[in-house]
Amino acid sequence: MHRIAVIGASGYTGVELLRLLSQHPKTELVCVTSRQYAGQSVSEVFPSLQGSLDLFFENINPAGLADRADLVFTAVPHQAAMGMIPGLLDAGCRVVDLSADFRLGDVSTYEAWYQEHTAPELLSEAVYGLPELFREQIPSARLIANPGCYPTSVALALAPLLENSLIDLSTIIVDSKSGTSGAGRSAKVDTLYCEVNEGFKAYSLPRHRHTPEIEQTLGTLAGTDVIISFTPHLLPVSRGILSTCYASLSSPLSLEELHDVYIESYASEAFVRVLPKGQLPNISQVSGSNYCDIGLAVDDRTGRVIALAAIDNLVKGAAGQAIQNMNLMLSLPENTGLMIPPLFP
Amino acid sequence: MHRIAVIGASGYTGVELLRLLSQHPKTELVCVTSRQYAGQSVSEVFPSLQGSLDLFFENINPAGLADRADLVFTAVPHQAAMGMIPGLLDAGCRVVDLSADFRLGDVSTYEAWYQEHTAPELLSEAVYGLPELFREQIPSARLIANPGCYPTSVALALAPLLENSLIDLSTIIVDSKSGTSGAGRSAKVDTLYCEVNEGFKAYSLPRHRHTPEIEQTLGTLAGTDVIISFTPHLLPVSRGILSTCYASLSSPLSLEELHDVYIESYASEAFVRVLPKGQLPNISQVSGSNYCDIGLAVDDRTGRVIALAAIDNLVKGAAGQAIQNMNLMLSLPENTGLMIPPLFP
Amino acid sequence: MHRIAVIGASGYTGVELLRLLSQHPKTELVCVTSRQYAGQSVSEVFPSLQGSLDLFFENINPAGLADRADLVFTAVPHQAAMGMIPGLLDAGCRVVDLSADFRLGDVSTYEAWYQEHTAPELLSEAVYGLPELFREQIPSARLIANPGCYPTSVALALAPLLENSLIDLSTIIVDSKSGTSGAGRSAKVDTLYCEVNEGFKAYSLPRHRHTPEIEQTLGTLAGTDVIISFTPHLLPVSRGILSTCYASLSSPLSLEELHDVYIESYASEAFVRVLPKGQLPNISQVSGSNYCDIGLAVDDRTGRVIALAAIDNLVKGAAGQAIQNMNLMLSLPENTGLMIPPLFP
Amino acid sequence: MHRIAVIGASGYTGVELLRLLSQHPKTELVCVTSRQYAGQSVSEVFPSLQGSLDLFFENINPAGLADRADLVFTAVPHQAAMGMIPGLLDAGCRVVDLSADFRLGDVSTYEAWYQEHTAPELLSEAVYGLPELFREQIPSARLIANPGCYPTSVALALAPLLENSLIDLSTIIVDSKSGTSGAGRSAKVDTLYCEVNEGFKAYSLPRHRHTPEIEQTLGTLAGTDVIISFTPHLLPVSRGILSTCYASLSSPLSLEELHDVYIESYASEAFVRVLPKGQLPNISQVSGSNYCDIGLAVDDRTGRVIALAAIDNLVKGAAGQAIQNMNLMLSLPENTGLMIPPLFP
Repeated sequence: MHRIAVIGASGYTGVELLRLLSQHPKTELVCVTSRQYAGQSVSEVFPSLQGSLDLFFENINPAGLADRADLVFTAVPHQAAMGMIPGLLDAGCRVVDLSADFRLGDVSTYEAWYQEHTAPELLSEAVYGLPELFREQIPSARLIANPGCYPTSVALALAPLLENSLIDLSTIIVDSKSGTSGAGRSAKVDTLYCEVNEGFKAYSLPRHRHTPEIEQTLGTLAGTDVIISFTPHLLPVSRGILSTCYASLSSPLSLEELHDVYIESYASEAFVRVLPKGQLPNISQVSGSNYCDIGLAVDDRTGRVIALAAIDNLVKGAAGQAIQNMNLMLSLPENTGLMIPPLFP
Repeated sequence: MHRIAVIGASGYTGVELLRLLSQHPKTELVCVTSRQYAGQSVSEVFPSLQGSLDLFFENINPAGLADRADLVFTAVPHQAAMGMIPGLLDAGCRVVDLSADFRLGDVSTYEAWYQEHTAPELLSEAVYGLPELFREQIPSARLIANPGCYPTSVALALAPLLENSLIDLSTIIVDSKSGTSGAGRSAKVDTLYCEVNEGFKAYSLPRHRHTPEIEQTLGTLAGTDVIISFTPHLLPVSRGILSTCYASLSSPLSLEELHDVYIESYASEAFVRVLPKGQLPNISQVSGSNYCDIGLAVDDRTGRVIALAAIDNLVKGAAGQAIQNMNLMLSLPENTGLMIPPLFP
Repeated sequence: MHRIAVIGASGYTGVELLRLLSQHPKTELVCVTSRQYAGQSVSEVFPSLQGSLDLFFENINPAGLADRADLVFTAVPHQAAMGMIPGLLDAGCRVVDLSADFRLGDVSTYEAWYQEHTAPELLSEAVYGLPELFREQIPSARLIANPGCYPTSVALALAPLLENSLIDLSTIIVDSKSGTSGAGRSAKVDTLYCEVNEGFKAYSLPRHRHTPEIEQTLGTLAGTDVIISFTPHLLPVSRGILSTCYASLSSPLSLEELHDVYIESYASEAFVRVLPKGQLPNISQVSGSNYCDIGLAVDDRTGRVIALAAIDNLVKGAAGQAIQNMNLMLSLPENTGLMIPPLFP
Repeated sequence: MHRIAVIGASGYTGVELLRLLSQHPKTELVCVTSRQYAGQSVSEVFPSLQGSLDLFFENINPAGLADRADLVFTAVPHQAAMGMIPGLLDAGCRVVDLSADFRLGDVSTYEAWYQEHTAPELLSEAVYGLPELFREQIPSARLIANPGCYPTSVALALAPLLENSLIDLSTIIVDSKSGTSGAGRSAKVDTLYCEVNEGFKAYSLPRHRHTPEIEQTLGTLAGTDVIISFTPHLLPVSRGILSTCYASLSSPLSLEELHDVYIESYASEAFVRVLPKGQLPNISQVSGSNYCDIGLAVDDRTGRVIALAAIDNLVKGAAGQAIQNMNLMLSLPENTGLMIPPLFP
C-alpha cells in the first residue's frame, strides 16, 4: 500500500479526495491536515465519511510528512501552495498540487494573472497533469500541477480540433458554466444558498484566471500561440461544468466526419466518453464520476463547430484527475479506484 | 375597463398572464379558456391565484369571444394559434399572439423551420411586438406577434451594437440559458424534476427554432441579412433567461464608450436596466418582473464585445411583454400594471 | 404620505421590507440604514431594486430619526433591537420591531431562552402584532413586536382548534420546515449553497427559541398554559414555511365539521386562505405574498387532527406582516400594498 | 458469478439497481427488461451508465428467465408484480420484489389499502427483507418483499424504542419527507420540475399506503398492534428521506441513556450510523449510499423522544437494500458491493 497525505482536506476538493481515496484499493491515507479543524475527527466535520475514514485532522507539518507519506496532495489555495511545496519536495515527497501555482510554465504570465511567484525555479520541472493529452511525463514526475476545472473541460473538448488543424485558431470562444462547489467552502455572502439559488450569472469578465491556462494548453496542442474569449458562469447546482466551445472550421466538415475524429482521438481513453452523434452532454450524467462527456454539432449555416464537454468539477476537474495522476506516478493502472459510475438522478 | 380574454390559460405562460392581469388596474378579465380544465375554477387548478381571480376555465369558443372581449391573448402552441386567429380577427377581436406563428415575416422561412402555414396572408399585417425596438406600429395593430423569450433577450442585448454599426455581423455567437418553465407545462419525462435538477445541458443544436426569429430582428436593425450561431441550454431554475452574446468589434472601443452607447440607447425605456459598468446581470435579480438587465464587457485581448441580457422568460419573455403590447394597443401608459419589483431572494 | 424608516435594511427581511414598501401607495421611504453598506446605493447592493427605490444606505442614527420618520421598522438581530428601541420611542417614533426582543411578555421566559433583557419595562407595553388573532391593540400601539415566522404559521394553523376547545392541549406536536432565507444573510459555512442544496435536516432540537413564543400565543388562546413539542427543519428553498401540526381531538369530529370551523374563524380575513377540503398547502403557492394557506386532515384511526399552514417566511412571516401592522397603526386599510398574488412557478 | 436479471429497469429504482449491480464484484447482470425501451441500449437511455454497463433492454419474458438468471429483481409497480412473480417462482427463480405486493402479511389489510390480491397464497412465504430487524429468514427465502422507503426509515428510527419497551405505543407520530425520485419516472404534471422546485407540501393525508406496512413492522417489534399517524411530504431534492418520529417516553430517560440504547442496538450493523449525541442527520450526508443515519433528542419539557432517520430513498430505501437482501440470499458478505461512501456535496 502506498502511503498518502492530503494537505488542506477541509475544502470541497479536499473532502472529495478523501471520498475517493477512502475507496482506493492500493493506497492508505496516513495524514489529513486542516488548520481550521485540527484535532477534530474527519467524520465529525464531514458526517458523510463516517464509516469510510477513521482519521483526525492534523495541523500542517510539512517537515515531518516525508517520513510518513510517499505522495502528498496539496489542496490549498494558490500562493499557499507555492509556500509549502518546495519544502515537501526537498524532504523527498512527491507532490500532486491542486492549486494554480505550477500550472503556467511562464512566470511572467503567472505574475500577470495572479501575483508574485516565490518558487519560479520549479515551473519548468512541474508536469501539467492532464493525462489524456500529456501522459508521457507524468509517471516520472516529482511535481504534478493538477489542471484547473474549466481548463480540463475546454482542453478535452477542443484537443482533437487542434491536433488535426481543423479550426481557425483566432475564432475560439468558450462559454463555460460551473456548479457552485467550484467557488469553495469558505463563508462568503456571494455563495450563500439564497444568493445562488434560482440564479445564474457570468462572472470575472473578461479576464478569469483560467484563461491563460486554457490558452497555454491549446497553444501547445496547436503548436502556436492561441488567444481565446472565455466566459465563466455560476450554475445553481453543487457539481458540474459544461463548456460550450465555438470555432470556425478551416474547411467544411460533416458531423459524421467530425465525430469520427473525436472517436479516434479518444479511442483508448477510459474517462472520455464521446457521445453518439446527436446526443449532447448533461452535467447530471457525469456527477460523482471521473468521466468527461463530449458532444458535437456542426452549424452548416455559419461554418462553425460547437464542441461541448461536461465534467464533474470536483472529480475530473480536481480530485479524480489528481488520483489519475497519482496512479500514473505510482505505476498503478490509471483507472484504479476511479471506475465509479455517475450518480443519476 | 377594457375586457380581456386569455385563450390557453393553463400553461405557464397562461397562468402568468392571469397573475399579471389580476393586478392590472385598467382591464377586466372576462374569459379564460382551457380544454384540459374546462369547468374547473382557476384557483382550484392554480391555488396561488385564490383570492386574486374568481373565474372558471371555459372551453375555447372563438366565435362568441368578440362580443365579450376587446382584446384576446392567445397562449396556445404554434400551429394551434394560426388555426384560431383568423376567426378571432374576423369577429372583430384584436389579438396578442404568444405563439411563434406570426413572428416571421417570410412564409418560406417559417415553413422551413416549423411546418406549413395556413394563414400566410396575415404575416404582413402582424406586428412584431418588441416595443423597445419597434414601438411605432403597435398601437394601431390588430394582430401582435409577441416575441419569443430567447429572441427578446438577444435583441435587447445586441440592438445598440447593430444600430450603431459597432460589430462585424458575421461574428455573432449567442449562448443562451433558459429556466425550465420555458419548456412548458405538459407532462414529459424530459422535464420531470429529477431529470432537470442538478443538471445542465444544451439542446436543439444547431438549429433551434428561435434562430430565424433572432436573425430577422438583427437583420432589420442592421439593414442587411445576419446569420448567427445560437445555442440554447436548459437551466435547473423555474424562471429566467441569460443570453451571453459575443461579437467582434469593428474598431476598438473602451468599456466606457460602449456603456455610454447602451445608456443612451435605452435612456427612455422603463424596462431596460443597463447595469453600472462592471456589474453583470443575474436572472435572480429580474425574477417576476418585466425588466431586462444588461451587462457589458470588452475583451481587449480578442477585440470582442460580450453583451449579456437577463430577463424573466415568463414576463419580459412572454406574458409581461404581451401586456406591454396590450397597453400600447389600448392607449394606456406602457408600463401600466407592470412596475412590479423582482422577487429576490 | 407617511414617512417610513427601515433600520437594518440589508438582511433578507430588510430587503423584503424595501421591496414591499417601494410598492406601498401611502408611504414614503425616507431612510434605510445598514452599517455594512453605509454610503452605497440600495440598487448597487440589491440590483433587483434598481428602478424601484432610489436611496442610499445610511449609518444608523436613531437620534435624528424622529424628525424624519413617523414610523420605524427595526430589522436588526435580537439584543441589538432592545438597545436602540427605547431611544426611538423616547424620541417620539412608533416602532415595528421584527426581532424577538419584545415578543415574550415574561422577562424570565425571555432570559431563559435568550439572554439578559435590558429594556424589560417595555415588555408590557409592546403589542404582539398578529392581526388575525390580536387585532384590537395594534392601531394604538407605540411598539409592535412583530411575530416570528414559525410562530405565525403555527398560531394561524392551530387557533381555531384552541378557540373552540377542540383538542387535548397536552398532545400538540409541531413539525415545521423553513426555507433558508430564514437563516439570514450573514456569511456562514452552514448556509452556503453546497451545504444546503439537496439536503434536509432538523436543527436546534429540542429547544428552538421560537418554542416559548408559540406556547405564549397558544396559551393565550387556550386560556391556560400550553406546552408543545416543536421541531424546525431546514428546506433547500429560498422562501417558505410549512408547519404540520398534530393534536388529539377532544371528541370525534369529521373533516367537514372541522373545515367549517376554520372557514368561520377566518371568514373575514384577507390573508388567510382556508383551502377546499382535501387540498393541502404548498409553500410554492404563497411565495412572495402575504397569504397563509391552511389545509386540514382528520385521522379517524388515531383520533388526531393534522392542521397545516404555509406562509412565505419573509412576507407573512416577517416583512409583510410588519406592513400589515403598520397599516393598522396608520389607520390605513389593513391590506394596503399587500394584495400581491404569489409568484408561481 | 451469480447471474442476475432486473425486470422493470427503466424507472429510478431500476436504474439505481443497474448502477449498483454494475459495481458488484460477485454478480453478473444478464438481463434487463423494459417495455418502453425494449431494443435500446441501456447507455442510450441512461447516458450515466455508458462505460459501466453494456446491455440492451429486452421485453419482459418471465418464462425464459429461469434458465438465464439465478435471481431476479422485480422493479415494477404494485399489481404488476403480483402478476409475474408466481410464474418466476414456479420456473425456479428466486425473487427480490421491490413493489408493495408481498410486504403485508395479511391479505385483507393489503386489499383495504391497495386493491384485490391475486397471489395471496405467497404472502405467508414472502420474507420481509429488512435485514437489520429480520435477518434470520432472508438467506433461505425464495421470495423477498423488499421494504418501502418510508417504512425502512421509520422502522430503523423506532426499533430500539419498541424492542426495549421505552415508549407509549399510542403516541407515535411520524412526519416524513421524501425526495422526488420516490414519485417515480413516469410523465406527470405533478412531478414536473417547475411544480416541485421551490415547493414543499404534505400529500396523501391521512391514509398513505405505507402506513399499514409501518404499523406491521412496529407491531411485530412491539409484540402487539400499533396504530400511528403518518404524514409524508414531498421535498424539492432528487434523493433522500428524513423521518422525524415522535413518541412519549414510558418513563424519563436522559439523552445519554437513550443514545446508549441505540448504540447497542446497532453495534454490529454496517449500514446504520447512530450519530454522536447532539448531531442530527441530514439527507445530503447519505446520498448515494446504503447508510441509515440516526439522530436523537429528548424533550424533557414534554417527556417525548424524537428519533430521526435519514436514508437515500433509492438505496437503503430500495435498490441498495434489495442488493443487501440478495447478498444474504447468495451467502455473500452482506455488504458486498455496498460500501460506497455518500456523495457530498
